[in-house]
Amino acid sequence: MAASLPSAAVLGARAFAALEGLARFSDEPGKLTRLYLSPAHRQAAEWTKGAMEVAGLTAFIDAAGSVQGRREGPVPGGPSVMIGSHIDTVKDGGRFDGNLGVVAGILAAQALRDAGIVLPFALEVVAFGDEENVRFPTHLSTSGALAGDYDPAWLEARDADGVRLADALVAFGGDPGGIAGLARKPGSVKAYLEVHIEQGPVLEVENEAVGIVTAINAQRRARVRVTGEAGHAGTVPMALRKDALTAGAEMALALEGIAAGHEQAVGTVGVFQVEPGATNVVPGAVSFTVDIRSPRDETVAAMEAIVRERFAAIAARRGVGLDITTYAKASAVPMDPTLQEALSAGIARMGVNPTPRRLPSGAGHDAMAMAALCPAAMLFVRNEKGISHSPLEAMTEADAGIAIRALLEAILELARREN
Amino acid sequence: MAASLPSAAVLGARAFAALEGLARFSDEPGKLTRLYLSPAHRQAAEWTKGAMEVAGLTAFIDAAGSVQGRREGPVPGGPSVMIGSHIDTVKDGGRFDGNLGVVAGILAAQALRDAGIVLPFALEVVAFGDEENVRFPTHLSTSGALAGDYDPAWLEARDADGVRLADALVAFGGDPGGIAGLARKPGSVKAYLEVHIEQGPVLEVENEAVGIVTAINAQRRARVRVTGEAGHAGTVPMALRKDALTAGAEMALALEGIAAGHEQAVGTVGVFQVEPGATNVVPGAVSFTVDIRSPRDETVAAMEAIVRERFAAIAARRGVGLDITTYAKASAVPMDPTLQEALSAGIARMGVNPTPRRLPSGAGHDAMAMAALCPAAMLFVRNEKGISHSPLEAMTEADAGIAIRALLEAILELARREN
Repeated sequence: MAASLPSAAVLGARAFAALEGLARFSDEPGKLTRLYLSPAHRQAAEWTKGAMEVAGLTAFIDAAGSVQGRREGPVPGGPSVMIGSHIDTVKDGGRFDGNLGVVAGILAAQALRDAGIVLPFALEVVAFGDEENVRFPTHLSTSGALAGDYDPAWLEARDADGVRLADALVAFGGDPGGIAGLARKPGSVKAYLEVHIEQGPVLEVENEAVGIVTAINAQRRARVRVTGEAGHAGTVPMALRKDALTAGAEMALALEGIAAGHEQAVGTVGVFQVEPGATNVVPGAVSFTVDIRSPRDETVAAMEAIVRERFAAIAARRGVGLDITTYAKASAVPMDPTLQEALSAGIARMGVNPTPRRLPSGAGHDAMAMAALCPAAMLFVRNEKGISHSPLEAMTEADAGIAIRALLEAILELARREN
Repeated sequence: MAASLPSAAVLGARAFAALEGLARFSDEPGKLTRLYLSPAHRQAAEWTKGAMEVAGLTAFIDAAGSVQGRREGPVPGGPSVMIGSHIDTVKDGGRFDGNLGVVAGILAAQALRDAGIVLPFALEVVAFGDEENVRFPTHLSTSGALAGDYDPAWLEARDADGVRLADALVAFGGDPGGIAGLARKPGSVKAYLEVHIEQGPVLEVENEAVGIVTAINAQRRARVRVTGEAGHAGTVPMALRKDALTAGAEMALALEGIAAGHEQAVGTVGVFQVEPGATNVVPGAVSFTVDIRSPRDETVAAMEAIVRERFAAIAARRGVGLDITTYAKASAVPMDPTLQEALSAGIARMGVNPTPRRLPSGAGHDAMAMAALCPAAMLFVRNEKGISHSPLEAMTEADAGIAIRALLEAILELARREN
């Protein structure tokens, strides 16, 4: 059966050609910017629908703006294996993030059709549209719609120009009233698989083409404000200062140490603003963000407690005020163990690695939303420089091919398990 | 002789009334903002000229915009003792900074005249106009003009609206062509004395009404840029990060420690900017400023060397790039020991403190420019909260009175030494 499937090299070449085609659709000339429900998103959705149809799928653009393609299995309307990812991008992003997973699904469907392989389940490919959360303050709304987790308040969300999501959706050709009807029934999707470029350097550093995601990390975010006393940089003796910046610096270093001390955890201060921010003024206040992630809910909870304790001790010792507001908490989303096994078996069958690298995902993905509906799993593909959300994001054609071939092998593995 | 001089309490009340009068002249309603050569500066200069004339001085507004008042001594055109400070302010500043020293000079001249005291030298009072360096990128240009240190390039400097200093000076009623003629001959000024609110908390903490400045601190300023690698805050493991922010934080703390380890030295990071500055991005670069001051040139030089060594070690250990550009160096300006003694004798004679507190000035002052021409000294007055360049700057009437009375006693001390 597998002998008639295209090689990884052929799949890689097809993927790169397709990704080049998709990369044409941008809202900004010279960059790849394709925000949810923008004109470029609409063009990319049409292209995706066409590509799905050429691959033998029945396709349509749904009420929320996702492109859905399907080939029926033995029982029309029966349970499916769904391959998905997203075609929206960040501003000035890369061509692989999201798009690779959609192209992988389409090429897999095409290869299976061309090889005459009949699956014991329906095959679906979905191109979601709202994964990057750039234009609207929504989170995974299009995959949430399929999972039955669409918050109607999202329709009232507005972009930076004041445009309501509902109005943008109508202008795109979608249908706010039809979103509730997109929710799939439990059991109607047997498995959700997503191929995605790794948004970090782990596979690159460890020289692995692909890796299997164990969980999408739990996350907490907080805003921290430290209030000291502004003063003249020349005239306030060191011993009399309440310098908010050095207090904040000590906290940032404490967070770094706490994260390094917890396995697979990360902690980041990404925003750090100083008031008043003048060369000759001892800073009176700083505001910064804290982002903590780990594959385990207990770990992020423990880290938050340690952070709060350490920050409070630093503030007390330095005599500065401290306010910590946790504004986002997301639980870890474990990927389905059986599907992880299917991906592992697929990779092993290719001879790439008998025990593929398993790693958590530090970033959110549509698989996170879909996991509320059905078993879900993800395959990460090596990112040549570990750089994400940037035109410098990079991948080799060979790795793309390996990933798509591994996806095919995993689909065949699931088919074998049905029989 | 001294019996007929007003008490400190009377001088304090007169000073507060005068400072309230001066505080009316502002370029911004509801705030005290009086930038060099602005309409409010012109009004304040006219008020100052009037107050000088009422105090028995012959007064005029000079080519650079300073107000000069003079009462001749025994020999017309002979050497003078000059009392000065500035009447420009920062944006939204306090009413004491600079203005107190001008008012002190005027009230001292008035008190001497009223008491019928004949001095063995001319008495001059000068209200400089460009001490705060807010409007134009110039430094002590008006006192520099008297000291013969006026750089003609300053006339081409432009403010934020693009207005040339020379044009602003003409609009003010000044005369760019007349500035060179303002330079005093060496020997024509025997002493320059300046009363100024302390811009820090030292006298407040030590419960001293006044203090004698030993030196205006040496200073170095540098711009530092740390370049790491931006990355996704969720996906780049701690061990693989090159976080520019935590590297910069470690440097800011190192500077704090270095400054604390050098007596009377200060070190400040006042500006700290993060790129890209997003919650979910490991910072790829930070730019920050370093400001180092000490009363001794050797100390700032040694501190700069230690800072460079420590920052380089931090950068090397963390694998980040480092660029340090020192863009300003100012040598320490010692205050004249004989004039310090005269101020000390004056304070002792009042019974305030037989051994007055001596302290360095961390900030620049017109006395720094004048010290290039003649012996110069400064008397600092307690700042109730140590807050400078703010409407919260505060002083008691009692302390203002003590300072002016001490100034008078110091002038009389200099007179006694002539005889």
